[in-house]
Amino acid sequence: MLKRIGKHTIEFTEKPRIVGFGSAVGKKEGEGPLKDWFDRVFVDTTMGGETWEKAEAMFQQETVQIAMEKAGLHKEAVDYIFAGDLLNQCVSSSYGLRGFEIPFLGQYGACSTMAQTISMAAVFTESGAADFCAAVTSSHFCSAERQFRYPLQYGGQRTPTAQWTVTGSGGLIIGAAENGKFKSCEDLLNKNGGINLKKQICIEHICTGRIIDMGITDANNMGAAMAGAAADTIYRFFNDTNTTKDDYDLIITGDLGQVGSDLMYELLKKQDIDISSNHKDCGLMIFDREKQDVHAGGSGCGCSASVLCSYFLKNMLKRQLNNILFVATGALMSPTIVQQGESIPGIAHLVHLKNCTE
Amino acid sequence: MLKRIGKHTIEFTEKPRIVGFGSAVGKKEGEGPLKDWFDRVFVDTTMGGETWEKAEAMFQQETVQIAMEKAGLHKEAVDYIFAGDLLNQCVSSSYGLRGFEIPFLGQYGACSTMAQTISMAAVFTESGAADFCAAVTSSHFCSAERQFRYPLQYGGQRTPTAQWTVTGSGGLIIGAAENGKFKSCEDLLNKNGGINLKKQICIEHICTGRIIDMGITDANNMGAAMAGAAADTIYRFFNDTNTTKDDYDLIITGDLGQVGSDLMYELLKKQDIDISSNHKDCGLMIFDREKQDVHAGGSGCGCSASVLCSYFLKNMLKRQLNNILFVATGALMSPTIVQQGESIPGIAHLVHLKNCTE
Repeated sequence: MLKRIGKHTIEFTEKPRIVGFGSAVGKKEGEGPLKDWFDRVFVDTTMGGETWEKAEAMFQQETVQIAMEKAGLHKEAVDYIFAGDLLNQCVSSSYGLRGFEIPFLGQYGACSTMAQTISMAAVFTESGAADFCAAVTSSHFCSAERQFRYPLQYGGQRTPTAQWTVTGSGGLIIGAAENGKFKSCEDLLNKNGGINLKKQICIEHICTGRIIDMGITDANNMGAAMAGAAADTIYRFFNDTNTTKDDYDLIITGDLGQVGSDLMYELLKKQDIDISSNHKDCGLMIFDREKQDVHAGGSGCGCSASVLCSYFLKNMLKRQLNNILFVATGALMSPTIVQQGESIPGIAHLVHLKNCTE
Repeated sequence: MLKRIGKHTIEFTEKPRIVGFGSAVGKKEGEGPLKDWFDRVFVDTTMGGETWEKAEAMFQQETVQIAMEKAGLHKEAVDYIFAGDLLNQCVSSSYGLRGFEIPFLGQYGACSTMAQTISMAAVFTESGAADFCAAVTSSHFCSAERQFRYPLQYGGQRTPTAQWTVTGSGGLIIGAAENGKFKSCEDLLNKNGGINLKKQICIEHICTGRIIDMGITDANNMGAAMAGAAADTIYRFFNDTNTTKDDYDLIITGDLGQVGSDLMYELLKKQDIDISSNHKDCGLMIFDREKQDVHAGGSGCGCSASVLCSYFLKNMLKRQLNNILFVATGALMSPTIVQQGESIPGIAHLVHLKNCTE
């Protein structure tokens, strides 16, 4: 059952479960601090294909496949796919996933898409609309650079506030809670090395973002453009649930990077909230900023998606983490409208994940 | 409650209601056969603004505003907005709707977006996640032409299969059924000239589309690219619900145009289904093809959205129509990936609307 808490938070009383997840990244990400956590590292950025766009589509296909395998599910058992990406017309999702023949609902939340697809999948499974839903997103450095900034061959200088788009994807399968609905994952326990996924990671709450415009017009300063949205969503969620940062092991943002994280702290401090002591940003984790020359950090839909679906969910399975807020952040701009002088609005969607005790 | 029927159809047992709707179109649409049905006709395609993109954003803002007014709702009463459009990164939605400060979930279904946003809004209201949700989309001939085809100034010749992107938007508000949840539209009856909207147009079923690729590679033949998806969704819905075309007053497709409609008939005939006698295509209704030089018909997210939210919903209020299937169709391509030699996959989402009898 879905229960509304406060103004914008939804509580899931049956608690949908994450029954499988997968991650795949490119070469640079595979050389970073999280390299041992990813399911796949592809050193060829075209995945043996012709173009970066087609490669990115293959990343999504790959992570959905891994997630279904880990869940012990055939594609026929998955009722809906929620997916989106940064490419124009979200073609990474539609081309990467067309082969599955699963009803498809394209989502667009820019780099917040992972949290948005999880939110939708959770509402669909909890409400009885579906038994299993896939949630997936991706990004690719090369396809994003040429679409949003300059052709790679141009060799443009990057400003200090610029972030490095992650080449990668994260995908997961959400199943309805155990009210007899599980049809085809009896063998989950064995397939996951003794860990019974369907008993463990629950979706407790979601809090959907509002469009927040901080007036930033610099397309090389996405962190700042998204900081206000992250602060707004975290603040509203704490209010709705009457909790504080101390109630969670970690608060994880998507890709604020250093500039955006600092700005978010500042904005939250105005509300007497200080999350800096248990906050992590996926954009600051995926690369080694000293050695990998990524300026303010990683970014892209694939950043928060690949880090969630590797490091964080695996640490939840190990019970190193039990209770986290995943706040993916997005900048809802296009190059066209920024060139027309518009500022860049941000959005942040929150998902509360918890290890189930029963 | 959401009840699953067959494989991919959801039945709403409480039946969410359309409590307000609005339409706004441009000059050419305002000179077409449906001119008297639209709420607003703007003869200036930039809406007095600077660019076509910003004008398109204003179209969405306008229709949501009209829909809220007709529903007698303030923006604070609307829990979620589901919106999307054809522009890169869906900026018409995010820029047009940021002022409302309503939690925002961007949807991307290309020209099928209106049916997709209605589907999501219906699931959210029926499941208890929301009391009221807005669903809106738009398109604009000038912004679409320069993004998907050629700059208008180039004066490119159009092929006979080409369609004309509608400048317009349609938006509506869906409210949870009358289980005491309606908070702020007691005065609906008076605001709508004696018609009590909340008692009338119900969402009975939705059937979500799959990505269907017919192998079409001509970006000037979208109708053909989408015909397979429309046939697939209609066929699956008839199967799931054990109904035939005779059970409905009309089956309405979004923007197949002449070429796509004919191809859809042919595909359905292979399954022994002939819907030609009670089928209408919004793309064939919005323009006078004899006089308005639009080749195969109208297209774009705004085509099915503006025709649904004017002619069709108003005819339901008048009880000229009581029971319709709205099947919006989309082509999930981008110019980049088509230039890379890829074919154009289609998708079609179905919404079953019915006048409530009680």
